[in-house]
Amino acid sequence: MATENAETSKRRIDELNGRGYRIIQDRDGFCFGQDAVLLSAFATVKEGERVIDLGTGTGVIPILLEAKTRGAHFTGLELQREVADMAAESVELNGIGDRVDIVCGDIRQVRSLFKAGQFDVVTGNPPYKTCGSGLISPNEKKAISRTEIMCTLGEFAAAAAYLLPVGGRFYMVHRPGRLPDIFRELETNGFGIHFIRFVHPYEGRGANLVLVEGIRGAKNNPQIEPPLFMGRPDGSRTEETEEIYFKEKLMDHAL
Amino acid sequence: MATENAETSKRRIDELNGRGYRIIQDRDGFCFGQDAVLLSAFATVKEGERVIDLGTGTGVIPILLEAKTRGAHFTGLELQREVADMAAESVELNGIGDRVDIVCGDIRQVRSLFKAGQFDVVTGNPPYKTCGSGLISPNEKKAISRTEIMCTLGEFAAAAAYLLPVGGRFYMVHRPGRLPDIFRELETNGFGIHFIRFVHPYEGRGANLVLVEGIRGAKNNPQIEPPLFMGRPDGSRTEETEEIYFKEKLMDHAL
Repeated sequence: MATENAETSKRRIDELNGRGYRIIQDRDGFCFGQDAVLLSAFATVKEGERVIDLGTGTGVIPILLEAKTRGAHFTGLELQREVADMAAESVELNGIGDRVDIVCGDIRQVRSLFKAGQFDVVTGNPPYKTCGSGLISPNEKKAISRTEIMCTLGEFAAAAAYLLPVGGRFYMVHRPGRLPDIFRELETNGFGIHFIRFVHPYEGRGANLVLVEGIRGAKNNPQIEPPLFMGRPDGSRTEETEEIYFKEKLMDHAL
Repeated sequence: MATENAETSKRRIDELNGRGYRIIQDRDGFCFGQDAVLLSAFATVKEGERVIDLGTGTGVIPILLEAKTRGAHFTGLELQREVADMAAESVELNGIGDRVDIVCGDIRQVRSLFKAGQFDVVTGNPPYKTCGSGLISPNEKKAISRTEIMCTLGEFAAAAAYLLPVGGRFYMVHRPGRLPDIFRELETNGFGIHFIRFVHPYEGRGANLVLVEGIRGAKNNPQIEPPLFMGRPDGSRTEETEEIYFKEKLMDHAL
């Protein structure tokens, strides 16, 4: 980790992965975490596909997917101008501006920003909390990322449905407690759930995250994947977690 | 296992559990299986509670719950007269007629059979297949048990909602592919999902069964329990499976 000068002292630049990619984060804003890394590992992007990440924040998901897949192009959509600028800087820093672009705009306004069915894959890490549930973060940037102030799960799913053709894939990470809403909103927006994978801190513990693959226009017939255990009760990491994090040299981040 | 005489040669009487309970089954009908045993292990019945099992078949669930809990009374509701008579015989055979009764009747007609909110706990193993999906068993008894010919998941959930007061608990075992319907029908019928547990053949394999606890009138905020692995890749049983089956001496059945 390298800290910048006093003028931009709230920012930090971290090494991201084994390719030498770096990422700019904001100490007072929202740094990327386990959920973004797991979503990048869960999502499938095939050669030549076009991908958009809704509410991209630091841009970590398009940057990781650019590095690990043979997709043609990666777009990150971010509402907050300051955050979008930071993500765009990270893209430039890594010299991948030809394959990744960051668009500043509102998920609820995708119709004015993109063509219908323009992408093959949509990824997203929607806000976990509904408005009115729990404390709202006093920090505005964090509040927008974490709470459904600016975008509900339904608006998120509706945007994904607009952006994908029939057969297009939507990958999402969320809290298991929101599964009833996930099922309802994906169904309402014409998605069939294909795969669900639960993430548990370790065997014998309940799940704290859920990864979902929805396919536009497909039959709603979810398969439950083998669970992902992040660690073992003795504190060691599982082989799969080692693989996800070490392959990308992501061990400093949010494990 | 003891086979009866030629007149009833399609029937067999099996030892059921460590208490010396026995159960009558029908070779041509539907013998109880893993799902019934797992549902009995998953369901919580507190002292003095009244329990009803919808579509009880052989009566295995009320008989197992009578043996392992301190519930006050257990009812098994079964549509098919011949199957209900067989279940009632098993109850008599075990001398537990004071705590268990079998009622022959239709899940869709519970309003004419029972009072609203008469039970504290409802258990059920609804038919797995929707009508029109896959082969219908040519054997009528099996077809009714396995396919939604006589009762859909929605009718099942509506019956449970009628039979339980606010706060009453509904335990169900089903296939993971039906989760979208489970979420929709429980929500429609006023249940909040409390716990979900997935059952996997072994670690590294997808789930083939799901256990669900719904609470009438509760917030729909499911917790995902630790997964249940039935065995290990080498064919051995997990400790938890040993406990579920051996404690009840159920190892001959359907593992």
